Amino acid sequence: MTVNLLKQQISQAISIQDVVAFERCLDIYPIVDIAEALVSFSPEEIAPFFKVADYKQKAELFREFGEVTQYELFELLGPKFIASFFSEVESEVRADFYQSLESEEQEKFLPFLTKKVRADVLKLSEYEPDTAGGNMSTEFLYAIGGDNVEKTARNLKQDYRFRKNITNVYLVDEDMKLKGVISLVDLATANDNMLIDKLADPGPVFSRIDEDQSSVVQKMEKYYLSTIPVLNNQDQLVGVIYHEDMVAIIRKEDTEDLELLMGITQTDEGLDYLDMPSWLHFKKRATWVVSLAAVGIISGYIVHQFESTLDKLIILALYMPMVADTGGNTGSQAATVVIRSLALGEFTHRAWLKVIFKEFKVSLMLAACLGLLAFGKILILSGNTDIPPLLKLWKVALVISAALSMQVITATVIGAALPLTVKKFGGDPAVAASPAITTLVDITGLLIYFFMAVTFLDIDKV
Amino acid sequence: MTVNLLKQQISQAISIQDVVAFERCLDIYPIVDIAEALVSFSPEEIAPFFKVADYKQKAELFREFGEVTQYELFELLGPKFIASFFSEVESEVRADFYQSLESEEQEKFLPFLTKKVRADVLKLSEYEPDTAGGNMSTEFLYAIGGDNVEKTARNLKQDYRFRKNITNVYLVDEDMKLKGVISLVDLATANDNMLIDKLADPGPVFSRIDEDQSSVVQKMEKYYLSTIPVLNNQDQLVGVIYHEDMVAIIRKEDTEDLELLMGITQTDEGLDYLDMPSWLHFKKRATWVVSLAAVGIISGYIVHQFESTLDKLIILALYMPMVADTGGNTGSQAATVVIRSLALGEFTHRAWLKVIFKEFKVSLMLAACLGLLAFGKILILSGNTDIPPLLKLWKVALVISAALSMQVITATVIGAALPLTVKKFGGDPAVAASPAITTLVDITGLLIYFFMAVTFLDIDKV
Repeated sequence: MTVNLLKQQISQAISIQDVVAFERCLDIYPIVDIAEALVSFSPEEIAPFFKVADYKQKAELFREFGEVTQYELFELLGPKFIASFFSEVESEVRADFYQSLESEEQEKFLPFLTKKVRADVLKLSEYEPDTAGGNMSTEFLYAIGGDNVEKTARNLKQDYRFRKNITNVYLVDEDMKLKGVISLVDLATANDNMLIDKLADPGPVFSRIDEDQSSVVQKMEKYYLSTIPVLNNQDQLVGVIYHEDMVAIIRKEDTEDLELLMGITQTDEGLDYLDMPSWLHFKKRATWVVSLAAVGIISGYIVHQFESTLDKLIILALYMPMVADTGGNTGSQAATVVIRSLALGEFTHRAWLKVIFKEFKVSLMLAACLGLLAFGKILILSGNTDIPPLLKLWKVALVISAALSMQVITATVIGAALPLTVKKFGGDPAVAASPAITTLVDITGLLIYFFMAVTFLDIDKV
Repeated sequence: MTVNLLKQQISQAISIQDVVAFERCLDIYPIVDIAEALVSFSPEEIAPFFKVADYKQKAELFREFGEVTQYELFELLGPKFIASFFSEVESEVRADFYQSLESEEQEKFLPFLTKKVRADVLKLSEYEPDTAGGNMSTEFLYAIGGDNVEKTARNLKQDYRFRKNITNVYLVDEDMKLKGVISLVDLATANDNMLIDKLADPGPVFSRIDEDQSSVVQKMEKYYLSTIPVLNNQDQLVGVIYHEDMVAIIRKEDTEDLELLMGITQTDEGLDYLDMPSWLHFKKRATWVVSLAAVGIISGYIVHQFESTLDKLIILALYMPMVADTGGNTGSQAATVVIRSLALGEFTHRAWLKVIFKEFKVSLMLAACLGLLAFGKILILSGNTDIPPLLKLWKVALVISAALSMQVITATVIGAALPLTVKKFGGDPAVAASPAITTLVDITGLLIYFFMAVTFLDIDKV
């Protein structure tokens, strides 16, 4: 409710250019909500109001604006202006924004940054985006062993302004090597003169700077961590992955898996749906559907080989799509289940034999059920279809539904085996998803279908 | 590496029944890793070792064991034994385990619980599993206004043993009404005699006990919260949703969306892949494929209406699957993209007009691309196919590929519109996913296909 009220106030403030009213909103409402209320306005409309916010508020608003708005404000207000509050912006947000600039814009921007911020931005921009380094913050709380609780608290007081929801202080030695982790709750409730070393858990879980983001997230999930320290190869603490970074990684990876499963290609642009231009949407989707259509030439070739069979027994043509569709569906389901279980770490690819066996059992049940249904369907629908005198409808129905059952079994087992195989060879199992499987089982399905028809229906004699 | 070493040590300890060696492992290694090493053994093998752990360790091990192992240990060791360490188990884990029991087992179990634990378990079991109440913990840190920092810290010291990664202390009044939230980092660094009320943020974001879990998660993501307080209808603080609960909800919802998209039905059992019996896997998948096959009767009926058309022009039968498949693929892609964007809150269903327009533009590009490809494919593959003398191959190819293009546009727009419509009427957009769309566009596709063939190819004359 308050968000709607805020939206009204802000849109009124903008329409009558009332900067004072906007400043009042800044004082009362959460920045996140203000940013949300601002998204429906153009950067030109936003700019004069953005200017009146204080440095901290500018930094927070900037974080909330999407990549597109950030860039447009940069164009509109110039590098010097953006640089003026850049030291207040979170380290990862800074690095992401910097990386989104063209190299000549980067060159224009860098001189306006303070030495410290510049070094931090350049350093963070070096790490691959899907590693621990590419997702970490360089702001974190640390304490040097040997101090007591009171002194540590005094030191921290100057440092921690960057965020509120912190759980830990990291214990390091003079070379910044990680020695332990101290829970803030322990620190807050300990006696003032206690040595902080005694509060520390000496063997904290950590991640390496070049570690893959999905491995980092799995570690955090396994040990119920909301933050994880990131070490470089000299065991020095260089950053921390916080709760919200972890959530962002999970969201990103789940979206990727889902898209891969639907044959949607990944791009580097992290754009929201409406921000992404139509041609980019087209590009992301076309790759697969076009390749699939191209590979479909193989299925087309097989069908053409059996053209005379189809010509003699048109009923076979009528049920060809049913067999192909059912195979694609059951195969995709098996693949989905296996890919998701692998992603959630429910089993490793070493359990492949158990998985294939289980899928085989599931496929037998599905095959029985779907085969029976198909048999009934053909009897009902095709009562009036032309069938050569030597054949009986029930016999044709039996062969078609048996082929469908065979296809369900093959497709399910292929659907489960493919992601396991890709994983075994170190790939992302999600690539062996729906599209690949649909294509593959289309081919196996047609082969099974025509093989059974030719073998059991004596088509050459009819 | 250490995990592998631990696994060796534990499997050796179990094989020679060396309880002392196991106790040593309990002292050295994280409980999570020990639980992981134990999963490959049967409950009978685990039980004697489980017994030697202390209460706290038993509770943590119990949390890690899956539902199946928990239940088998309950059967094996009896309700009294499980109840003996139950007060150390986390509140949500307790409630989940209790709910997994049959009602007569619940009756046997309850008398062994302490009054406090029993009340907590029964209370938590009342909430729907997909609400804030169903996911919250009843353990949290709170402080009553009017105390100073030192006194608060002293009070907390007795309370907080339940977990380490805490970010906040909640400020309440004497009726447990939420008045504010205090960052632990503020508390840890404040002067001893400061009034805690001054440290509190007076307007914290909270959730209601009956609030839907996806709305809770969206709030936490929006405001970058790692924990959120849960209030009842009297504004009293009754629980907290922690970081790992949030992650579990996200994982659960993403899995659900993925499964819905593939036509896999949800069940209440939260079983891992290998723990789930084959018939349950079958049940989860059969619902959709069977319904789809049943609805396929409509497509079958349409095809039969045009049997004589197909008989005259067998080439139409050959390309029927291609048109159906392409429609299914492009429609599913559009639905996937829209469903995911809705789930991530990238837009609301109010932006439907923009979305449909964007999808329309994307579909035009896809239609052009795929139509052209289909035209070429038909010319290449069907050079030798029988075509009635009055018709030319290029003309047939043109009509088929035009129908395919029309189908791509229709399917994409339907794919985008369906989840938006479901969302508008308050449903979960993911149900309007792949299966539903495939079925729907199969029908529209066939109608377009035969309509165009009959209209432009003068089939009755050939």
